[in-house]
This record gives sequence, C-alpha cells and structure tokens, in this order.
Amino acid sequence: MKASREVRLKKYAKGSVSADNFEIAQVDLPDLADGEVLVRNIWMSVDPATRIRMADMSGFDSPIPAFTVGAPLDGGAIGEVVKSRSPDFDTGDTVQSWLGWREAFVAPGAALQKINAPGIPVQSLLGPAGVTGLTAYAGLKTALPKAGETIFVSSAAGAVGSIVCQLAKAGGLIVIGSAGGAEKCAYLREIGVDHAIDYKAEPDMLAALRRVAPEGIDIYFDNVAGAQLEAAIAAGRDNARIILCGSVSTVNDEAPSPGPRNLILMIGKQMRMEGVTVFHHFHEMPEFLQELQRLVAAGKMTWRETVFEGIESAPEALAALFDGSALGKALVKLGA
Amino acid sequence: MKASREVRLKKYAKGSVSADNFEIAQVDLPDLADGEVLVRNIWMSVDPATRIRMADMSGFDSPIPAFTVGAPLDGGAIGEVVKSRSPDFDTGDTVQSWLGWREAFVAPGAALQKINAPGIPVQSLLGPAGVTGLTAYAGLKTALPKAGETIFVSSAAGAVGSIVCQLAKAGGLIVIGSAGGAEKCAYLREIGVDHAIDYKAEPDMLAALRRVAPEGIDIYFDNVAGAQLEAAIAAGRDNARIILCGSVSTVNDEAPSPGPRNLILMIGKQMRMEGVTVFHHFHEMPEFLQELQRLVAAGKMTWRETVFEGIESAPEALAALFDGSALGKALVKLGA
Repeated sequence: MKASREVRLKKYAKGSVSADNFEIAQVDLPDLADGEVLVRNIWMSVDPATRIRMADMSGFDSPIPAFTVGAPLDGGAIGEVVKSRSPDFDTGDTVQSWLGWREAFVAPGAALQKINAPGIPVQSLLGPAGVTGLTAYAGLKTALPKAGETIFVSSAAGAVGSIVCQLAKAGGLIVIGSAGGAEKCAYLREIGVDHAIDYKAEPDMLAALRRVAPEGIDIYFDNVAGAQLEAAIAAGRDNARIILCGSVSTVNDEAPSPGPRNLILMIGKQMRMEGVTVFHHFHEMPEFLQELQRLVAAGKMTWRETVFEGIESAPEALAALFDGSALGKALVKLGA
Repeated sequence: MKASREVRLKKYAKGSVSADNFEIAQVDLPDLADGEVLVRNIWMSVDPATRIRMADMSGFDSPIPAFTVGAPLDGGAIGEVVKSRSPDFDTGDTVQSWLGWREAFVAPGAALQKINAPGIPVQSLLGPAGVTGLTAYAGLKTALPKAGETIFVSSAAGAVGSIVCQLAKAGGLIVIGSAGGAEKCAYLREIGVDHAIDYKAEPDMLAALRRVAPEGIDIYFDNVAGAQLEAAIAAGRDNARIILCGSVSTVNDEAPSPGPRNLILMIGKQMRMEGVTVFHHFHEMPEFLQELQRLVAAGKMTWRETVFEGIESAPEALAALFDGSALGKALVKLGA
C-alpha cells in the first residue's frame, strides 16, 4: 500500500472556481491485481474543459459528463511506472494516462499509453504536441484554409490559439490574433502574428478588426465566444468559416449567455460555423505530429508553458486559465 | 406616355410594417428608347427579404442593400410585354423581372427574362418553381441530407418550409415541421410531414422535439431563428447540420435579438451551422426544376398560394408574411 494525494470536487462550481470547490485528499493505493500498474505522475495537464465539467449540468443538456461531488477530477497526465503486473509495461516506462489530478494511481495497463517522442520534451505531449495541438490542427483543417486568406484567432496567446496562429502562418495565411494585455500581444508578434489586437484596450472589436483587415476576414477560430464571435460574424467575408473551439468568455457564467445577435448576417454571406472537438479527431494525430516535427525543425513553431508546482497548486492553476494569467500551456509538475 | 402606380418606401420600418411605411404613387412612364420594353405586371412576389431591406441599415453591417426612402421597392414579378423596342421581345411575351411593386415599367431588354414553363402556372415561377423553391432546394442540399435521417423544419407551412418538407420526404427523411396553429399543422400532415408541432401550443420547443424525436435531429432547416433555433441546437445529434435560411421571428425586432444561448453545445457535438442565400445558387435552377417537375408528376409535391388583389394591397400582403396569416406563397395579382 502506498499513499497518494488527489484533488476532488468538493462542490459544484458557479462563476469562477475558488479553493472552496476543491478538496485535496490523502488516499491509500491498493495492491496491484494482475494486469495492473502503479504509476507516479510527473506532469498533469490543466484544461478549460475541466472547469466545464465542474458545473452542475443536471437539466442542461451537455454531451460532456460532469464530475461527481466527492470523486477525484481527471485529465491528461504523464508519469513513470513504479511497479507493473502488466506484461505491457516495465518499471521506469514513461506513460500517458487520463488519470491526472492525483500524485499516483493504480490502473489496468489498458488505461495507459507508452510514450515515445524523441526530441520533444515529454510534457509537451500534454499540450502543443498532444491534445491541445491536435485541437488546433483539426480545427484549422476543418476551416479549409487557403494561402492568402485572412484568419482571426481569439485567445491567440493561449495554448490552442498560439498553435493555430503558427500553423496558419506556416500555411501562408495572414494572421490576426487577439489577446489581453501588451505582454501577450508582444508574444503574438514574436510568434509571427501579423496583427495583434489587445482586446482589453479595444472598446469595439469590430472596429479593431476593420482597422487591420478592411476587406474582412475569411476564417475566425473562436476560443472565447461572446463579443469577439459577434465581431467576427460582422467582419466575415462571403463564405467565411467560423470554428467554434472554446468559450472562455462564457464558461464561468452562471446563466447561459446570449449568443451573437447577428447570426442573420450568416445567411447573406453564406457563412459556415462549425464546432470542433478533439475527441472526434484522434485519428489525425500521426499526420499532426509529422507536421509539428517539420515546423519545429524549420524554426516555425515554438510554445510556452506556465508551470505550477505540486498537486496543491492544481486548483490555482485551473483558475489561472480564466483570469488570463497563464501564458501558453498550463501544467502542474507533480514529481521529477 | 403611360400612367402606372408604384409602391415607395415612405419611412424606414421599425418593428412591424404598417401603412405608414409605404406610399403609393402615380407615375408617368417615359417613351421607349432603343432597346427598351414596356411591361405590364400581372403578378408580383411578396418576400420576407423586402421587410429586411426596409430597415435603416446604416451602422448595421448588412450584405443586402436597404431600400431608399422615396424610391420604389422592388422584387420578383411576372408581366406581359405591351410594347417593345428590343429585338429580343415581342408584344404579348410573358416575362419575368425584378421590377415588382409597380403596375407597369419601362426597362432595357436585359432586365427581363422570357418565360417558358409548360404545365406550370405562370405565377409559380415567383414561388415554388422559382426563387422560393430554389432556396428550399439549395438549403436542403447544403445540409447533405441522407435517407433515414431526421430533419426539423420551422415555419414549415410557409413558402420555403413547405417545399423543404416535401423535398426531404421525397428523399427518404423523417420530417418534423413546426407551424403556428391547428390549421397549418393539419396542412403539414396533408403534405406528408411525419410530426407536426404547433409552436404556439408548445411552451417548450425542446420538450416537443424530444417527444417526437427522442434520438435527436440530424438537420434543422431554420426559417425563424429565436427559440426554435436554440431548441434545435439542444436536440441536435452528433454532426447535426443547421441551415440558416431566414429569421422570421427576429426580423421585426428593433434591436438585434440575442442569439442562441447554447452555441457551446455545437462544439461537443461537432455541429455545423451554415447560412444559405439563394443569390449564390442560381446555377442550380435547371437541376431544381427537373427535380420539381419529376415530383409534381409523381404527385409528391403540391403548394398553396395566398393571393392579394391590386397594387394597393401589396403593403398588407407584406405584413401578412409576419403575422402568420399567409399560407404558402404570398402573391399580389396586379392584372389579368
């Protein structure tokens, strides 16, 4: 028997999450049954979807299951095999699982994936080289981008947004990115964004878009919904595409927020809006990793991480996603 | 010189249109210049788009041009050539034009199209066999419908909706149609709709949809926006498609209405929403007419008309589109 700590949902979240929503509990791990593996987590991913699943969704028709009060949260993690009774894993193997938000765990071998990623820092598989990057890749691909087109990316300094910007740039698009504050906008320019818009300094997003793209935009990659989505619909050219990928601006709302007031404009402009969730795109992982390796080698793709230390910092790390303080991929380091 | 009457925009419309928004003016038509034709209108089409263009759109980014105060309205019309100085037209020819909302007019031959539609009542070319039907056809085609799928059509007893329902039925889909009142719902059943929903009698559209389609819907053909759009997003299955084709429920609003509050559900379900405007689909007219003739011959396509008499009834005919009193295609008969 081995002791571990895990983060549990203490009460459903309304509005911003705070320490009250979480409980950090000590647990004793069971002995290994046949086929099981003991894993010590080294890194865990911090994702907006976790906040969505912390809400009480009864009565609200969501395709994503909510967490259970009293049970541990979960999410992507990378760890090291400490002990194995599975023929597929040996002590010392580096493995990826969906069992983050805990320091260690016992699970069947089938819940684990062995990692083999030469030349890429292991924690990147939780972000730019993993589900986050695949989200960016699959979303952008769904928009059918063409070289020379103009794309607007919101939350462009974020984990998904910054990858979208660099993929689009590499594809020959003109890239407009929005982010909050001068520091993030400077970062956008560093990664090659053509026009960085500080949405906190812009009272009128549509005016800002028109200033940098008087001819309008062809693609909007939406990570925030709200006012930026409405502005993008207004600035969309004929046959413009909108990829719905996240709703950072509304995810903390207690009541559902009103949607864009100008959907009617999509009719005359024959615009298309499409939701993309990475769960339907795992089969594109190999082609994405190939593209990523090519771009990294060519110096056309970089990323940043914000690292929190220790399981007790995980709640704070999640909150940081929504107050704009985490730059790039948010991670919690659980061990060395 | 010949006298005619025309309907002009007297003041921009806010909310419902009333007699105050229109002026019926007497005009003298000029003598024919070379290449010009004098046409006496027999039928004019009454379309929701006309109401949209009657609003003051300054400051509101619309791809559809607004009418000018003091100038005549326009729209589809069918008439007879009274006098011609164009080599392409002879006295007595039946012609289609965009110069409705007037009893007669002088225009260059290039503004006219000769009509040749054996076996179809001539006024149908302004509706089911014309732009209205093509709107239904192109919109449904954009949704990529498959036999066995479930489609929900709002304003299903309307000019576009009733054609969508019958095209979908002929394509092997299960059809749910919504309309206001028992009479319209009875009509829906007459044209083969599987489940007719009286939205005026349903406090909760989502509950109504779940009752008739517990497994959800694959396609929503939106003619109204508002609450029915929100319900359709909630009832959409994975990969459901929404065709935005009209916004009857919001077109009279003074301030832009909030959009659906649940767009975020489109992400997890990878739903697609696409605006369709007939102006981009005129090239599909021949294939549509072929399909229509086939269905009419097979007894699988019928339609209704609501006919108003005389140019002075045109404003009332337009208002009738929005108060739900016009069943099927609304027309004004301007002559015999």
